[in-house]
Amino acid sequence: MIKVRDCVARMTAYVPGEAALDSGVVKLNQNENRYPMSSRALAAARKEASGLGLYPESSSAGVRNAAAELYGVRPEEVMATNGSDEILRLLFHAYCDPGDAVFAFYPSYTYYATLAAMYGADYRLVDFTADYRLPPGLKLPEAKLAFLPNPNAPTGTVFSGAEIRGLIEATPNGVVVIDEAYADFAPPGTSVIPLIGEYDNLAVVRTLSKSHALAGLRVGLGFMREAALAELDKVRDYYNLDRLAQAGGEAALRDTEWLRETTGKIVATRERVTGELRRLGLEVVPSGANFIMVGFGGAEKARRVFSGLKARKVLVRYFDKRRVDSFLRVTVGTDADMDRFLDALRGTLQEPA
Amino acid sequence: MIKVRDCVARMTAYVPGEAALDSGVVKLNQNENRYPMSSRALAAARKEASGLGLYPESSSAGVRNAAAELYGVRPEEVMATNGSDEILRLLFHAYCDPGDAVFAFYPSYTYYATLAAMYGADYRLVDFTADYRLPPGLKLPEAKLAFLPNPNAPTGTVFSGAEIRGLIEATPNGVVVIDEAYADFAPPGTSVIPLIGEYDNLAVVRTLSKSHALAGLRVGLGFMREAALAELDKVRDYYNLDRLAQAGGEAALRDTEWLRETTGKIVATRERVTGELRRLGLEVVPSGANFIMVGFGGAEKARRVFSGLKARKVLVRYFDKRRVDSFLRVTVGTDADMDRFLDALRGTLQEPA
Repeated sequence: MIKVRDCVARMTAYVPGEAALDSGVVKLNQNENRYPMSSRALAAARKEASGLGLYPESSSAGVRNAAAELYGVRPEEVMATNGSDEILRLLFHAYCDPGDAVFAFYPSYTYYATLAAMYGADYRLVDFTADYRLPPGLKLPEAKLAFLPNPNAPTGTVFSGAEIRGLIEATPNGVVVIDEAYADFAPPGTSVIPLIGEYDNLAVVRTLSKSHALAGLRVGLGFMREAALAELDKVRDYYNLDRLAQAGGEAALRDTEWLRETTGKIVATRERVTGELRRLGLEVVPSGANFIMVGFGGAEKARRVFSGLKARKVLVRYFDKRRVDSFLRVTVGTDADMDRFLDALRGTLQEPA
Repeated sequence: MIKVRDCVARMTAYVPGEAALDSGVVKLNQNENRYPMSSRALAAARKEASGLGLYPESSSAGVRNAAAELYGVRPEEVMATNGSDEILRLLFHAYCDPGDAVFAFYPSYTYYATLAAMYGADYRLVDFTADYRLPPGLKLPEAKLAFLPNPNAPTGTVFSGAEIRGLIEATPNGVVVIDEAYADFAPPGTSVIPLIGEYDNLAVVRTLSKSHALAGLRVGLGFMREAALAELDKVRDYYNLDRLAQAGGEAALRDTEWLRETTGKIVATRERVTGELRRLGLEVVPSGANFIMVGFGGAEKARRVFSGLKARKVLVRYFDKRRVDSFLRVTVGTDADMDRFLDALRGTLQEPA
């Protein structure tokens, strides 16, 4: 058999949260949005489905125009991609030669490591402080890319504009990628999209998979200066978004009332559940996302609770890794979902060890 | 601004055929299928549209199972991708280090060159013979990848199994990629998918964009030995196919009656139009695809006919390149489309130069 490239042979595939299970399960392990998608997005996708014989418009102009209006940038400063996975990959392809240093923080989203391996990067993790913030005095002059989710996953930590400016200024020779997958659940003013006018080494990444309840449609967004996006655009698959994703994605972005209402409900539920968990004596890391990281004081107990919840058909996420192995990450679903979760949790905690 | 990698900075973006125009245009320039898609594929996509909140199944099992049944392979020997563009890119990512030799033929599909530039490959073109066949005595020991569409685009030439075996055996140190985008319009037995059991350096690529009338849905297929596909799978975006593409793609692959009927009509129309063009004294290259390459004896005349057709709202494809610049490539649409084309062509040919 013909050998693949060394960087590919060495890498292992990314493993996300468990997918399909039987239908009675409350699925709180992948930070999906448990509310139904916008009916306008549904109608737009259904309408578009009637004619799929022609190639899509390559640049996803409808999606980009809607995003530009919503976020106050020009359409040339937005790229639409097949989920945010694609824009993350394009950033690697455009900036990262084999051996280049790429930075991320710990604990944080692990898909950056998979992409780094795919491109043969020298991937380096910097630990967050004890309360999951950026370490003071950070300097990353060797970084070609540096990734920070805001809010962070799996902790839910929200970084201030000042903290992000600090990271950008600490990275003079590389692109800082702020991954705003969960920003719609954070306090207003969290997004740093407005800063792309100020910093030419800033990329902001968004997805419609979380707040817009469209994980199944695959629409991501990348925001960057026009000249930088033009380079990324060269390496984008020409027809990366199908017609249905373009139609549904544009309609979803324009349905701002749906978004405000749904994210409002999820944020209220997050605060209620956080309070209930704390009353149970559990540690909850302050979260600006649609999930919460709940601490159980030890890895063995966290694993036991994970199994107990699963036995009660509530699926959450466990990471068997340093600093997070005594926690579970729980997606904030509907109020009914979270009542199921809280009931299952109480039942599990009452079981003898 | 942070500099992109040299290979990216140097490359130019791919330019496909013109897309949207006003609705009265007969669009015969991108080899789309002018018949409506399978009603079963439409129903499947519409049904799936109602719930897009959950991530898709990552491996596109439904599409792969349907393809495996249809083509007589195991599901582990099929990958489903976001159009065939993606499987072509994954082949580069898996096998091509910067500077590696990648071969294609001339004149042929030009997107391979874009991908080669994206990966910094040493891209080499070998001329087809005068009648667009593989040159005799071919030896490509330095090739890491070699690409051949069968039928070829833009000529429509169909290669025999023996010719393809010859190419595979001439490429002992690389993967031969047979791009069967148009194989459903070729004589039965054209496909070399059965040969993946015989050669571990063969990859076969398919798309639902042409014969299945689903260019707007983005579903491609890659066939290869299981061990090789497992390597490619590591570098695939984890959720590369959205739920709608998976549902529509699977239904389309299972609607074999629709495919047989539609491709039968297109092949019959191709033969009729070929006959009519030859009666007009024009050269038509024998085609096994859903397009025909029509010769006008010189580049100036071909360009004039292209413009004359466009003025009459018939859009075809002109390539301003060596060996093909005196031809036009015309998609075979419905009979009504082709009557519009033939009328417009007669009108154009009767105009004074």
